[in-house]
Amino acid sequence: MIKLLDTTLRDGAQAEGVTFSLEDKKRIALALDDLGVQYIEGGNPAANPKDAAFFAEFRGKRLRHAKLVAFGSTIRPGEQAEGDAGLAALLSCGVDMVTIFGKSSILHVEQVLRCTREENLRIIRESIAYLTEHGLRVWYDAEHFFDGYKADSAYALSTLQAALEGGAECLTLCDTNGGSLPDEVATIVRDVCQQFDAPVGIHCHNDCGLATACSLAAIQSGATSVQGTMGGIGERCGNADLCTIIPILELKLHQPCLPEGHLTMLTHTARYVAEVMNLSLTERAPFVGHTAFSHKGGMHIDGVIKHAATFEQIPPESVGNQRRFLISDQAGRAGVYARLSRILPDVNRDSAEMAQVIARLKEKEARGYTYENADGSFALMALDTLGRRPKFFQVADFHVLCHSPMNMQSVDKSAQAYVKVEVGGKEGINAGEGDGPVNALDIALRKTLADFYPAINNMRLKDFKVRVLDMGGTASTVRVSIESTDGQHVWSTVGVSSNIIQACFKALVDSIDFMLTYYADNRPKL
Amino acid sequence: MIKLLDTTLRDGAQAEGVTFSLEDKKRIALALDDLGVQYIEGGNPAANPKDAAFFAEFRGKRLRHAKLVAFGSTIRPGEQAEGDAGLAALLSCGVDMVTIFGKSSILHVEQVLRCTREENLRIIRESIAYLTEHGLRVWYDAEHFFDGYKADSAYALSTLQAALEGGAECLTLCDTNGGSLPDEVATIVRDVCQQFDAPVGIHCHNDCGLATACSLAAIQSGATSVQGTMGGIGERCGNADLCTIIPILELKLHQPCLPEGHLTMLTHTARYVAEVMNLSLTERAPFVGHTAFSHKGGMHIDGVIKHAATFEQIPPESVGNQRRFLISDQAGRAGVYARLSRILPDVNRDSAEMAQVIARLKEKEARGYTYENADGSFALMALDTLGRRPKFFQVADFHVLCHSPMNMQSVDKSAQAYVKVEVGGKEGINAGEGDGPVNALDIALRKTLADFYPAINNMRLKDFKVRVLDMGGTASTVRVSIESTDGQHVWSTVGVSSNIIQACFKALVDSIDFMLTYYADNRPKL
Repeated sequence: MIKLLDTTLRDGAQAEGVTFSLEDKKRIALALDDLGVQYIEGGNPAANPKDAAFFAEFRGKRLRHAKLVAFGSTIRPGEQAEGDAGLAALLSCGVDMVTIFGKSSILHVEQVLRCTREENLRIIRESIAYLTEHGLRVWYDAEHFFDGYKADSAYALSTLQAALEGGAECLTLCDTNGGSLPDEVATIVRDVCQQFDAPVGIHCHNDCGLATACSLAAIQSGATSVQGTMGGIGERCGNADLCTIIPILELKLHQPCLPEGHLTMLTHTARYVAEVMNLSLTERAPFVGHTAFSHKGGMHIDGVIKHAATFEQIPPESVGNQRRFLISDQAGRAGVYARLSRILPDVNRDSAEMAQVIARLKEKEARGYTYENADGSFALMALDTLGRRPKFFQVADFHVLCHSPMNMQSVDKSAQAYVKVEVGGKEGINAGEGDGPVNALDIALRKTLADFYPAINNMRLKDFKVRVLDMGGTASTVRVSIESTDGQHVWSTVGVSSNIIQACFKALVDSIDFMLTYYADNRPKL
Repeated sequence: MIKLLDTTLRDGAQAEGVTFSLEDKKRIALALDDLGVQYIEGGNPAANPKDAAFFAEFRGKRLRHAKLVAFGSTIRPGEQAEGDAGLAALLSCGVDMVTIFGKSSILHVEQVLRCTREENLRIIRESIAYLTEHGLRVWYDAEHFFDGYKADSAYALSTLQAALEGGAECLTLCDTNGGSLPDEVATIVRDVCQQFDAPVGIHCHNDCGLATACSLAAIQSGATSVQGTMGGIGERCGNADLCTIIPILELKLHQPCLPEGHLTMLTHTARYVAEVMNLSLTERAPFVGHTAFSHKGGMHIDGVIKHAATFEQIPPESVGNQRRFLISDQAGRAGVYARLSRILPDVNRDSAEMAQVIARLKEKEARGYTYENADGSFALMALDTLGRRPKFFQVADFHVLCHSPMNMQSVDKSAQAYVKVEVGGKEGINAGEGDGPVNALDIALRKTLADFYPAINNMRLKDFKVRVLDMGGTASTVRVSIESTDGQHVWSTVGVSSNIIQACFKALVDSIDFMLTYYADNRPKL
C-alpha cells in the first residue's frame, strides 16, 4: 500500500495568498484524517508559534486514520544536536514521528550552508541520530536530491547513507525546484532503491507541470510513499496535488492508498479544504474540479449520453464528483434535454415543449445569454417558456444614483437605489445604499422583497462576474453572472443588457425567483 | 524542429466560460503569429458562422510566422465526400491546410457512429482523399487513439493506414479523454512510429494532470508535432498547455520550436491571450504564471540571493517572466525599468526616481491595479509619481442616474450623467444620456471636455473589459480596462474601485489625459 504524506499545512503554507489560522489548521487536519491519509505534516514547531500551538492542541489525542508529523531542519554547520532549539522543539511537541530535511547537493552545501562536504554529512547523521535516540521515528527529506544527484551522484547518495546511519526510517527524495523530468526521476529513484535497503519516498514540485508525472514515475520505479498537498498548493507553481495522484493510484495503477470506499470523499474534501483556506479550487482541476466532468461540445454530449465511457475516462461518482452538461451554442438537443429532464421530468425528448425551449434558448444566446454556468436562469427560462414559471413579485420601478465622492479613494456609500415592487396586489417600496450601484441595487431589492418573503434574509451573493460581450465602446453589451447561496444550496443566474445595472438587476431577480421556486417558503406575508 | 499546432481558437473554445468574439479570435491569432507558432487552428468553418467569418477575414493574407489551419470532421457513415457540406466549407474557406478528425476506437465506431468497422475506414480514407485531391494539405487527428489502441490495436492502426491512403501528411494521435498515462503513450507512439513512415503528432488532455508529461513522452518516443492551447484551456480539465511545453522543449530537451529569441515573449503572450479571453491566467501556471518565480520562504529567498539556481530551475527572464520576493522587495526592477525608460529616457536604473515608481506600483498593485495591459495608465502613474504629470483638467463633480425602463427589453437612454470640470480656472458643465451608466458618463465627460480640447472629438473607445477581483458579493472590487483610439494610435488604461462607475471613470479620465499628453493639441480653448 502506497503511503500518503499530506503537507498542505507545512509546504502548502508557502503558497502565495495562503495564511492559516490555528482554527484553519485544525479543521484541515480533521478533514484529511476523515479522508484517510496516513500522515499529516502539521508544520514546524520551532519556526512558527502557530505551528507549536497546533501540535499542543493535538497532544495526546488520537486521530482516526492519520498520524500527525512535525517538520524540522538538521542542525547548523559547526553546531551540536544537544542543545539545538529546533530539535528540542521536535522532541517536545508531542508527536512520535518527524520529518527532517537536509542538503543533498554540493551546490547547496557550498553556496548556502557554506561548509565542507563532510560537515554536511555529519549534521545529517547526528541530527537524525539525536532524534531517534530520543525515541522518535524519523523520515528524512533529501532536499534538491535530483539536482544534487545530477551534479554529483556519489555525494548525493552519501547524504542518504548518512541519514540511514542516523536511523532514518524512510528516504524521501525531493525535487525541490520542480525542474526534473519524469524519466530522470525514474532513473534516479531506481538507482536509490537498488543502493539502499530502505523505503523510498517522493516529494515533487510543479514548476514544469510535471509534479504528478514525476511522482508516478517514482512510484513505478520503487518509491512507496508520496508527499503532496490538497489542490497542489505550495510555493511558486505548487506541490504535487494529492487530489490528482490519489485517484490515479487507486483507479489506474490499482494501488490502494485510502481506506476502502473513501475515494468518493475526495471531491468534497478538496472543496472543503479550499473553502477553509479561502482559495477557489482550480475550476478545471483533474478529478475534483468543477469542470472536470463538464461537457460542452454537442458531439461529446451526444457520445456521453449514448455511452458514458466514450468521453469520460472514469465515472465521476467514483471520486465523488458529478457530470455536467453545459448549455451553449456548441451543445445540441441532447444536452438541453439532459438538463431539462432534471427540472421537468414529464417533458418528452421529441416533444413540442422541447422544441419551444430550444428555440427560446437560441434566441437568448443570440442576445448574449449563456446558460452553461447558470442553472438557475436556465430552469426559470424553461419554466417561463412553457408558461409554468410562478410569479412571486413584480418590480414596478427602480432608480439608482451614483455620484463622485469628494475623495476618490473612498467609495463608501457612493451609490443609492430605491425599488418599488408589487406582491399580490400590495405595493412595497424601500431603498438601500452601497459601495457601488450594483451593491446599492442588490441591497434595496432584497430589503424591499424581504418584507414579503422573509426567507430572502437568509440569502447572500457568493460570487459576481462581468463579461463585456462586444466592442461597442462603453455601450457594449454586458453579461453579469452571479452565484447565490442560502447557506445550504448554491445556484447561479445570469442577466444580459447594454446597461450593466440592468444586467445585474435581471440576474438578481432570477436569483431571488429561483430561491423562491425551489428552496424557500414562497407564501407571501401580505 | 518540433512543430507546434495551437488550437486555442478551436479546442480551447470548448472550455467552460470561454466564448470568443470575432475580434477576440483575430487578436489571439495575431499574438500567436508574433510568438511564432507554426500552425494556428482557427476553428470549424462548417459548424460555426463566427469561425467562417474568421477565415474570411484572413483570406489571402499572409501571417508572419504561422499558417492558419481549418478543422473539420470526416463525412458521416453512408454518405459521400462529394456534396458534403463540412468538406465543402473546408475547401472554400481560403486555407491550404486542414485538420480532419476521425474515429480510432471500435467503442466509438459501434456506440457513437453506429456503423461497421469497414465503413469507418472508408469515411476516413475518402474524406481525406477528397480534400487532398482538391489540393489541400491534410493532418489527420486520430480521436481516442490511445483508448482505441488499448481496445484493439490492429483496428486502431488500420484507421491510420486509411488516413495515409487518403493522403494525410501527418498522423496526430489524440488522448481525447485524457485518461492515458505517460508510459502507455510512449509505448503506443513508439509502435506507431515503427509501423508508419509518416510524421506523428500528439494531442493530449489534462484529465489526469498528465497532459504535459504525455506530450513529452510522445515527443521522446518519436512524435514530431504537438498540439495544445495557451494556458491549457479546453474542455473539462483542459488541453496540453503550450506555455508549459514550449519552455521544456527549448530549455530542457534542447529542441527549438519557436523562432530564435522568441521564448522571452512567452509570458507576455500568455497573459495577453488570457486578457483577451477575459480569463485569469492561472496564478501558479508553470513558467508564465504570476507566482511561478515567487519566493516566500525566508530560506528560499536567502538561497536565491546567494545563488539564483539554488531555488530556481531556470532564469525567469528566459521565458519573459520575473522573479518576485514576497517579503523583501526587489521585484520586477528590470521590467519596470524597461517600460519606464520608454517614457522617461532620462531616469536612471538605480535612481531614487526608479525606487519611487516601483514603490507606487506595488501600492497600486496591492489595490488591484494591473498594468500588464494598460500602458497608458502606467505612463501616467509614473509621471504622476515623479511630479511630472501635466494637469489638463479637474473633474469637480459627476452624478449618474440609472432607471428601469418601462419595457425591460429596451435600454435606450436608460441612464443620464452630468459632469462638471474645471480647466485653467474656467468651469464647464454638460450632460449626456446613454444606454447604460458607463456609456452616459463617457458621453457626458467627453462632451464637457471637448469644449476646451476639441481633439477629444476624434477619440473613441475601442474596447472595454470588466474583471471582478474578489468575492465580496456585489460589493466586490472591480477592475475596468479600456482601449481607446484617435484613429491613428491605440492606448489602454485601467481603473479600480469597488464602485464600477468610478472604476470606469478613472480609466476614462486616464484615457483622455494620455491622449492630451502624447497625441493631441493640448492647449485649452478658454
